[in-house]
Amino acid sequence: MIQMTLIQIDNYGPWTVTPRPRTESDLQMLQANLFADLNNHFGNKKGLVFFTRFDNLLAISNGLDEEDHLRIQRSIRNRYPITISMGVGAAETPHEAQKLATIALQKAGSAQSGERKEILAVDSLVSEEDSFVQAAHIDINSVTETLTDIESAFDTSFMVNKAQHYLMTKLIKKGALLFFIGGDNFMSPCNGLSEQDIEDIMVEIDEEIGIKLKAGIGRGKNAEDAAYMADIGLEEIRAHNNEMWTWVIEKEY
Amino acid sequence: MIQMTLIQIDNYGPWTVTPRPRTESDLQMLQANLFADLNNHFGNKKGLVFFTRFDNLLAISNGLDEEDHLRIQRSIRNRYPITISMGVGAAETPHEAQKLATIALQKAGSAQSGERKEILAVDSLVSEEDSFVQAAHIDINSVTETLTDIESAFDTSFMVNKAQHYLMTKLIKKGALLFFIGGDNFMSPCNGLSEQDIEDIMVEIDEEIGIKLKAGIGRGKNAEDAAYMADIGLEEIRAHNNEMWTWVIEKEY
Amino acid sequence: MIQMTLIQIDNYGPWTVTPRPRTESDLQMLQANLFADLNNHFGNKKGLVFFTRFDNLLAISNGLDEEDHLRIQRSIRNRYPITISMGVGAAETPHEAQKLATIALQKAGSAQSGERKEILAVDSLVSEEDSFVQAAHIDINSVTETLTDIESAFDTSFMVNKAQHYLMTKLIKKGALLFFIGGDNFMSPCNGLSEQDIEDIMVEIDEEIGIKLKAGIGRGKNAEDAAYMADIGLEEIRAHNNEMWTWVIEKEY
Amino acid sequence: MIQMTLIQIDNYGPWTVTPRPRTESDLQMLQANLFADLNNHFGNKKGLVFFTRFDNLLAISNGLDEEDHLRIQRSIRNRYPITISMGVGAAETPHEAQKLATIALQKAGSAQSGERKEILAVDSLVSEEDSFVQAAHIDINSVTETLTDIESAFDTSFMVNKAQHYLMTKLIKKGALLFFIGGDNFMSPCNGLSEQDIEDIMVEIDEEIGIKLKAGIGRGKNAEDAAYMADIGLEEIRAHNNEMWTWVIEKEY
Repeated sequence: MIQMTLIQIDNYGPWTVTPRPRTESDLQMLQANLFADLNNHFGNKKGLVFFTRFDNLLAISNGLDEEDHLRIQRSIRNRYPITISMGVGAAETPHEAQKLATIALQKAGSAQSGERKEILAVDSLVSEEDSFVQAAHIDINSVTETLTDIESAFDTSFMVNKAQHYLMTKLIKKGALLFFIGGDNFMSPCNGLSEQDIEDIMVEIDEEIGIKLKAGIGRGKNAEDAAYMADIGLEEIRAHNNEMWTWVIEKEY
Repeated sequence: MIQMTLIQIDNYGPWTVTPRPRTESDLQMLQANLFADLNNHFGNKKGLVFFTRFDNLLAISNGLDEEDHLRIQRSIRNRYPITISMGVGAAETPHEAQKLATIALQKAGSAQSGERKEILAVDSLVSEEDSFVQAAHIDINSVTETLTDIESAFDTSFMVNKAQHYLMTKLIKKGALLFFIGGDNFMSPCNGLSEQDIEDIMVEIDEEIGIKLKAGIGRGKNAEDAAYMADIGLEEIRAHNNEMWTWVIEKEY
Repeated sequence: MIQMTLIQIDNYGPWTVTPRPRTESDLQMLQANLFADLNNHFGNKKGLVFFTRFDNLLAISNGLDEEDHLRIQRSIRNRYPITISMGVGAAETPHEAQKLATIALQKAGSAQSGERKEILAVDSLVSEEDSFVQAAHIDINSVTETLTDIESAFDTSFMVNKAQHYLMTKLIKKGALLFFIGGDNFMSPCNGLSEQDIEDIMVEIDEEIGIKLKAGIGRGKNAEDAAYMADIGLEEIRAHNNEMWTWVIEKEY
Repeated sequence: MIQMTLIQIDNYGPWTVTPRPRTESDLQMLQANLFADLNNHFGNKKGLVFFTRFDNLLAISNGLDEEDHLRIQRSIRNRYPITISMGVGAAETPHEAQKLATIALQKAGSAQSGERKEILAVDSLVSEEDSFVQAAHIDINSVTETLTDIESAFDTSFMVNKAQHYLMTKLIKKGALLFFIGGDNFMSPCNGLSEQDIEDIMVEIDEEIGIKLKAGIGRGKNAEDAAYMADIGLEEIRAHNNEMWTWVIEKEY
């Protein structure tokens, strides 16, 4: 089972324009710092945070218990002008897990309520025996040669976003998620999907928009191990001149 | 004229997997810290950086000259395990400006060359008299009520990404850019577009995918002023119960 | 027993002047960021890092094992232009613990060797049953009224440094350490010292240089708990109008 | 003339214990992040910030005007749970400059007033023509060989602190300041002192406590240039096997 945490800045929208709109570069710094910081906290416990919408972040949190979450909330409160609420859910698929996490938090009040503050709403946690994460690290074949070095920076960014949109659209239907992790890289928490499921999606995208993808798929007890195995899988595909669509590696403990 | 800077991490892809894949949470922290840091540097001079692809970032850099860029490269070199190259271009439209910036940098070598390092390739700079930035701050009407508080976090994120993809597709055709800046917010550097151009795009999106947007449009001598005016415009629309699609404000000096 | 970790930047001196002296504000940022980052990592495990000399930092590390230390080294390597080596020692007194940590690291090579890199030299670790930290949080009575609000900023800083120098001189003789933690605050890891020992030192300092101090003394299984108990102790003394020199609190588990 | 800025966290002491004492590692991170951040802001304008007491920081601020200071206050307010007030003063000596800065701020209210917030109290600013900074970069001869590699980390730190205390005591009498900048390094803003003045102090310290120091002395229009020249001076002394006590370099514009 995969465990996911939704991290939500409390009543953030109103704060950004009170008493008047705050400087955009400051807000970008605040959001990026918070994201980096949360990755430090979750990463210390082998979790992984995705920036998602920056004011709402999703994390794979297998291995983090209730106290871990409370400590993170405390540390953010002590160092930021804002506070965070969290919802936690565990399920067979990542989509279901984040949905349980979201519902738990939504029950505690609106994201833009002045009342709701520093809620920790735990729907469910994964036990150590049941802990399992499957993650696909997907990238675009030869992006430097085909895009970065010849197209304009924004056009390349547009193509990457297009790939992301198509990937999201197809993966969400199968209970998987997709996050952009920089460059031409995506990470898909995808418990429950087979190699064939993932290959099919990439074949479709190649046919529909002509973007060739590959996926290293990693399996482990937590996000760190699964992501590392996925990275190794991707390296294997590269070592084989991108001859295959996927490469699966399972961490042995 | 708008001036744009492309910031590119030198030879980053190979570094992330040498000698073996680096921990994903560390890479996310590195990228987020770099992004925040660049916003501090550019923001100090009233510029604004967008995370774009994190290893390739685009900034509105009106007001920053060659020495400013060199100093930023030096500061990054002194504090990060990576170095950055930059290209700078100025033009009537943002798309053209970033294209000139990209071409200037591409001429200096590949993004994945072991040779190319800390290049500053200036195609053109804007003089103070010609300096002009138009930026639209676009958001989704009532996102908290219609999405955040009722849909799952990932589904909301998916809808926001969908809006982004449609906005990018339409804006790029008119020489404008679009960046996600967190929450349900987008910033579009859009010198040369009329209010009607922007309204038309939002009307189309509403018809095509049923997402209602609005845009505060700001004009000023630099990114900070334009973004702030755009924020004020957005506040005006909210104060009028989202009755209009756009609201333009020009900074007086 | 207390466990202490010495964190040393590898071959840092030469790096700061290669190929020519690096900008001082950048070095200050690098050092401060590293210090903050290490506190995030150690703090996640209820440890506490003192800035010490910034390129050599001492941490109370009860609760952190060998893998924890290795993960911290990895995370720093992935995000900084420098790497760190560490020595770890455990003993009845803090001074002895940090000495064992230092010796272990010194055996592995010079701090300014180009060869020595990312060493983790563990002399000894504390088991969970033997884990015990005593820390005194010492501050100056009414520093705002007597110094900050009436003396020049540097003169106040000079007085605080004077207090530090006297405290260090006296505490080191008893096997305790002393670190400046900002404002008018000092933290003394002081396993083995009695309340009377600490009171005697403060009485002497009052007589010698006329600076009145007080100390909350906390005891617990790790740095976080001991420091928190010490803070509560200090609050108690304040609540009693600084009528007593010390107040001891032991954490109950 | 040298211009100095006192940066003071508003009402910080009470905040650190409200509603109960905040986790010490978080406070250390907050303080270190603020210090790094301020160096980024001041450093962008060729200033330099010293950590001083962390809640009260002194900066050489030649080149920063009133608007620069206001922008820094705004950026901190937007990203931290605390706000800062500042005082600015300019004078022939650093001690006088920081004194004027302190007095200006003290007049606006107590450091621990709940009322006083985000004050910018400017006593005086240096014009570009009058701008002049002299800074001595002082370090301990062969600290790695004589201390770091053979003494315990804390004992070395104690010796460095001892050197600091003696340097502060002597320099303050001559209107100069002294800040620890990490390792075995000190920076002394010392407008008005001659080479002989500085040599005399180091000779005395060698005689009194047997610690051998050397000083690169730099002169320029701002902190960055003066510090860089001082660094070059120090390199020159090292290149001459520490044969001389001081080496002065003045930046040519």
